[in-house]
Amino acid sequence: MKLAFIGLGRMGQAMVHRLLDAGHEVVVYNRTPEKLADFIARGAVRAQSVSEAASQSGGLVLTMLADDHALASVGAELAASLPPGGIHVAMGTHSVGIIRSLVSLHGSTGQVLLSAPVLGRPDVVTAGKAGIIVGGAPDAVARARPAFSAIGPRLFEAGADPGGAAAMKLANNMLLLCAIEALGEAFVLVEKSGAMPEVFRDVITEGLFACTAYTAYANIIAKKDYDKAGFTARLALKDVKLVQGAGEAAGVPLPSAAVARDRLLGVIARGEGEKDWAVLAREQARASGL
Amino acid sequence: MKLAFIGLGRMGQAMVHRLLDAGHEVVVYNRTPEKLADFIARGAVRAQSVSEAASQSGGLVLTMLADDHALASVGAELAASLPPGGIHVAMGTHSVGIIRSLVSLHGSTGQVLLSAPVLGRPDVVTAGKAGIIVGGAPDAVARARPAFSAIGPRLFEAGADPGGAAAMKLANNMLLLCAIEALGEAFVLVEKSGAMPEVFRDVITEGLFACTAYTAYANIIAKKDYDKAGFTARLALKDVKLVQGAGEAAGVPLPSAAVARDRLLGVIARGEGEKDWAVLAREQARASGL
Amino acid sequence: MKLAFIGLGRMGQAMVHRLLDAGHEVVVYNRTPEKLADFIARGAVRAQSVSEAASQSGGLVLTMLADDHALASVGAELAASLPPGGIHVAMGTHSVGIIRSLVSLHGSTGQVLLSAPVLGRPDVVTAGKAGIIVGGAPDAVARARPAFSAIGPRLFEAGADPGGAAAMKLANNMLLLCAIEALGEAFVLVEKSGAMPEVFRDVITEGLFACTAYTAYANIIAKKDYDKAGFTARLALKDVKLVQGAGEAAGVPLPSAAVARDRLLGVIARGEGEKDWAVLAREQARASGL
Amino acid sequence: MKLAFIGLGRMGQAMVHRLLDAGHEVVVYNRTPEKLADFIARGAVRAQSVSEAASQSGGLVLTMLADDHALASVGAELAASLPPGGIHVAMGTHSVGIIRSLVSLHGSTGQVLLSAPVLGRPDVVTAGKAGIIVGGAPDAVARARPAFSAIGPRLFEAGADPGGAAAMKLANNMLLLCAIEALGEAFVLVEKSGAMPEVFRDVITEGLFACTAYTAYANIIAKKDYDKAGFTARLALKDVKLVQGAGEAAGVPLPSAAVARDRLLGVIARGEGEKDWAVLAREQARASGL
Repeated sequence: MKLAFIGLGRMGQAMVHRLLDAGHEVVVYNRTPEKLADFIARGAVRAQSVSEAASQSGGLVLTMLADDHALASVGAELAASLPPGGIHVAMGTHSVGIIRSLVSLHGSTGQVLLSAPVLGRPDVVTAGKAGIIVGGAPDAVARARPAFSAIGPRLFEAGADPGGAAAMKLANNMLLLCAIEALGEAFVLVEKSGAMPEVFRDVITEGLFACTAYTAYANIIAKKDYDKAGFTARLALKDVKLVQGAGEAAGVPLPSAAVARDRLLGVIARGEGEKDWAVLAREQARASGL
Repeated sequence: MKLAFIGLGRMGQAMVHRLLDAGHEVVVYNRTPEKLADFIARGAVRAQSVSEAASQSGGLVLTMLADDHALASVGAELAASLPPGGIHVAMGTHSVGIIRSLVSLHGSTGQVLLSAPVLGRPDVVTAGKAGIIVGGAPDAVARARPAFSAIGPRLFEAGADPGGAAAMKLANNMLLLCAIEALGEAFVLVEKSGAMPEVFRDVITEGLFACTAYTAYANIIAKKDYDKAGFTARLALKDVKLVQGAGEAAGVPLPSAAVARDRLLGVIARGEGEKDWAVLAREQARASGL
Repeated sequence: MKLAFIGLGRMGQAMVHRLLDAGHEVVVYNRTPEKLADFIARGAVRAQSVSEAASQSGGLVLTMLADDHALASVGAELAASLPPGGIHVAMGTHSVGIIRSLVSLHGSTGQVLLSAPVLGRPDVVTAGKAGIIVGGAPDAVARARPAFSAIGPRLFEAGADPGGAAAMKLANNMLLLCAIEALGEAFVLVEKSGAMPEVFRDVITEGLFACTAYTAYANIIAKKDYDKAGFTARLALKDVKLVQGAGEAAGVPLPSAAVARDRLLGVIARGEGEKDWAVLAREQARASGL
Repeated sequence: MKLAFIGLGRMGQAMVHRLLDAGHEVVVYNRTPEKLADFIARGAVRAQSVSEAASQSGGLVLTMLADDHALASVGAELAASLPPGGIHVAMGTHSVGIIRSLVSLHGSTGQVLLSAPVLGRPDVVTAGKAGIIVGGAPDAVARARPAFSAIGPRLFEAGADPGGAAAMKLANNMLLLCAIEALGEAFVLVEKSGAMPEVFRDVITEGLFACTAYTAYANIIAKKDYDKAGFTARLALKDVKLVQGAGEAAGVPLPSAAVARDRLLGVIARGEGEKDWAVLAREQARASGL
């Protein structure tokens, strides 16, 4: 299948490698061209602009962009250059608001927007274990399916509303954030009550919470090892804002997320914004007088 | 090994069956005697009072009592009747405060208190899959170990402070409560954003949260099936109070637990206190105008 | 009018002086007798026990006790010694629960309990500016009215349920606590945004919030002067527990109070429990990285 | 003094009337011209554009705009048309972020931005009772002082940073929001505890909280009279976002504001966004099962 891919950050790179592995013809575009050489060497075709990528895409363009601002800009260019019937699949983590405005924008020119955020970080994609949540018109989903299959094995079909898929990704991120916040509270309670944090980690990870999220973060928090950031506190705060924005758009108060947001603000105010977001457990410790 | 067991509620019954299975000699006492027949038939010896149980216990008494009030009462009787060197193992879910006061009380008469709360409900105990968190003097833990082994396969040794083990159990319960609260928030966000709850359940349970806690409660919340209560909202509120009490005793604010507490209060105010505690997701739905 | 007064702490002393000023015949009892000399000198009659106070009271006993524990103990003695038709007026700040249980206890012996908490600290009482909230049977309120008039000029009649009056006092205290918490948040926002705290104090106290509560605490917080405690953080935490207990009894979540409670816990964990409760503004500063 | 005024909404109109009353020469501009007739009749001069207003302003332009979006647009035009040394006084309620970006923008062309938000609604301005918080360069403040004097009697000088003045206004609004939220919680507690709301209103407004904010809102909440909106829930939510944005910019968690935000979201989700913002007390009642 022929398609274009815009946005060759770390995540985008992992995805394009898998698309090429699967034998798809991929036109690539990135705002800064340095990252493209490896892909050209593997047979990808380089576009000089978003509109060139759109015109060579065969009508299917995947974007993996860092934020809403970049998506709004690229989306506007795609709306002006994709042919009618063309599909734009936004695969980053974006606000419900920008997704809905792009649905309108693309719709006004006879194109289709899908929201298809990816579950998992670059190494998970590379390992072939990523999931994809997709929302949008079923026939467009069907047409993009070979690309999804190449990127990750599991497609979660959220419904016909692309905004819903965006919200679902944010809800998943929120669950993780709230789990980390609760772990932070629980570990400090255990520690200040005179029990051993490492034992509590075992209670958690061998018991009701024997899953990736809790195992990973219970380990980090038990060891207070926040320097190697898998995901920084600063990025987590950006995520919380998207989550709260989704809550506002849908009319849903999210008090647990608000608690975690406040801890993240404290972390960043302390100059720890580049540490792993699990550092909010340290902020919880400070709030407990440690 | 010879021991006494006080408190034959559903949990206590499951535990005594396993102690008898393992060949221990068990003296049993319960405030209401009706439940004892099965155990007498299996060879257990019936005591007529707490002090008789203590005197026939060989110096090791396990209690599984419903609340702090019952534990305080039984503990006082044990302190008066157990010989010096005797061990009282409190295996219910209790406040840090009552555990610490019993440490003093038993200590004043040369006895030892262990806190050894059980992880898992009666069916988990019966299936031989329960864990036990234990806190207290290592030699007393060593002496009670055969009883622990009979009841459940995994012993988590929290440290020398029985209060710490009590806090660890409460911290574990708190994690579950906060997970349910966050699930409630996330599911309402997904639903009001126009995506399918069942798909979100799959995202969770096949992804980062593929563990007992999330699988069980994501299913209940996705189906809004709160009538068959595994654990009622009213009991959950009782648990939250123990959790907040532990936070106060240790000087640890627990804001995520406070959020969940408020939802539980709303649930109970609506007359849904006997529904499964996951019904706090419905309260979240109401707070979102549904 | 003849009456007995039990509980001669600082608040009780201020109240009894006013009762004597108004010409009432007062029988006084205090657990520790040292404080009574001044009152005997002014004509008060000393009782040797609660029951002696009750028997000499003319059927009207006012109590001003430090906590629920003391009230439960004195209340039980009064129930056993007051004649039928006797009135016990509990004037301290107590839980809704203990008030309701004393309503039952006194009711079972044909006596009447009124809840009549006082608004204002001892110096306010002495200055003749205290208010009293009263709840209970109207005829008993009418009978006690001369005593209320002597103590303070303004009687707020909350209704026939003594528990309601207790809740109203707690709700008033909660408003003050929440105002202090919000002031703490607002001042830190102002300060970290580069504006002058003293100017913000003026904005508040010359504007919408020109009242005792805000003037007093905006001054303390603007000056960060927490050492002279009008009311300590530790006592405030005790109050919050009464407030949350009232919320639980009535089925009312109180999220703003929970926020303030968490700050107080942090303050106490830092060893600042004996500072003025406005020190929660300092805890807010710490949570903001200051 | 000669000056220009941009933004003739209800607030702007009240302000311009006072400027004309004081004898100032006012050039007026509004995006929609209908509202200008009254002012022309009183001697104001009509500008056809922002840049015309700037060129006729004598170097002093006051803006009173509805939101950040409008201010960004007008600010850009002023930066292009005001002469060096010209002063732009932004008098609306704006984010700290937009104020700081305009400081840079105007600074780059040798102009000066002041932030001077007004305390009080249009009727308060008309009555000559409004306050003004001002932040920015002292000499520019001195130059604009006659205009401030005409608009309101009390100038609060927050410091040299215009962003600080913006934050101070938002902090003041936040205090009011948190007071309303706490009132909502307290009144429901009183009501569900069986005491009379009207009496509680008296306790508040005759006691520690005898000030405009509490008197106004305790009355509304006691009567549950939310239909005549002085300030709507929807506008309050917009305000909260500015407050939370200021908190994020300064690194200050604001948990009490988060609580109120969640209630407002619930109110709006119920379709009550156009009611008075005190309707969050009704949302509190719902969260309490009423």
